[in-house]
Amino acid sequence: MNIRELQWSKAEKQAARKAFEAAYRKECAAVTATLKDMRGRACEPRDLWRICDYLTEQRDRTDEKYDYRYSVLPFVLARLLKEGWLAESDLEGLSADKIEIIRFLAGA
Amino acid sequence: MNIRELQWSKAEKQAARKAFEAAYRKECAAVTATLKDMRGRACEPRDLWRICDYLTEQRDRTDEKYDYRYSVLPFVLARLLKEGWLAESDLEGLSADKIEIIRFLAGA
Repeated sequence: MNIRELQWSKAEKQAARKAFEAAYRKECAAVTATLKDMRGRACEPRDLWRICDYLTEQRDRTDEKYDYRYSVLPFVLARLLKEGWLAESDLEGLSADKIEIIRFLAGA
Repeated sequence: MNIRELQWSKAEKQAARKAFEAAYRKECAAVTATLKDMRGRACEPRDLWRICDYLTEQRDRTDEKYDYRYSVLPFVLARLLKEGWLAESDLEGLSADKIEIIRFLAGA
């Protein structure tokens, strides 16, 4: 079995998309909270540009991480699970073998 | 007289630096206020990246604008005066002829 060539049913695609987007929103909300905190402490112009650097890094980082191609989706979901942006319950709707693969990849 | 070749006394350099930095802080404070407003209205991840774009633009814009080389300083101070980041009273400490040049360049 090649993880990159798993077949995804329409229902699984919907469930995966939902989990993926929920994790993305959760991670962006964490960035927003940090932004609020940084802005609250910003006194100097350089603090403002530090916020700019921070946001640019976060955008680059999340753009790279949130890759929805089905060929890499098990790896992406595993990483989100490992990092706590997804709970196992968020994977509901995927087949048992896919959940097992994702849990295995996450080291869960 | 070549505006690019004006001579600046030590006292004038200090006065110019003070005015320049005050304007920069004022403009950065305005960016910070807009950032606060944007963050307050941010709901979606894309709003977060819009803030990132906004800050990047502001950094590029102010980096280009706040050029402290003495050869261009009269033009820079004139622009800041015209845009309201400086008041004429902020130019105190410069020679009368420099103030006249800056006012002329600002169209004041």
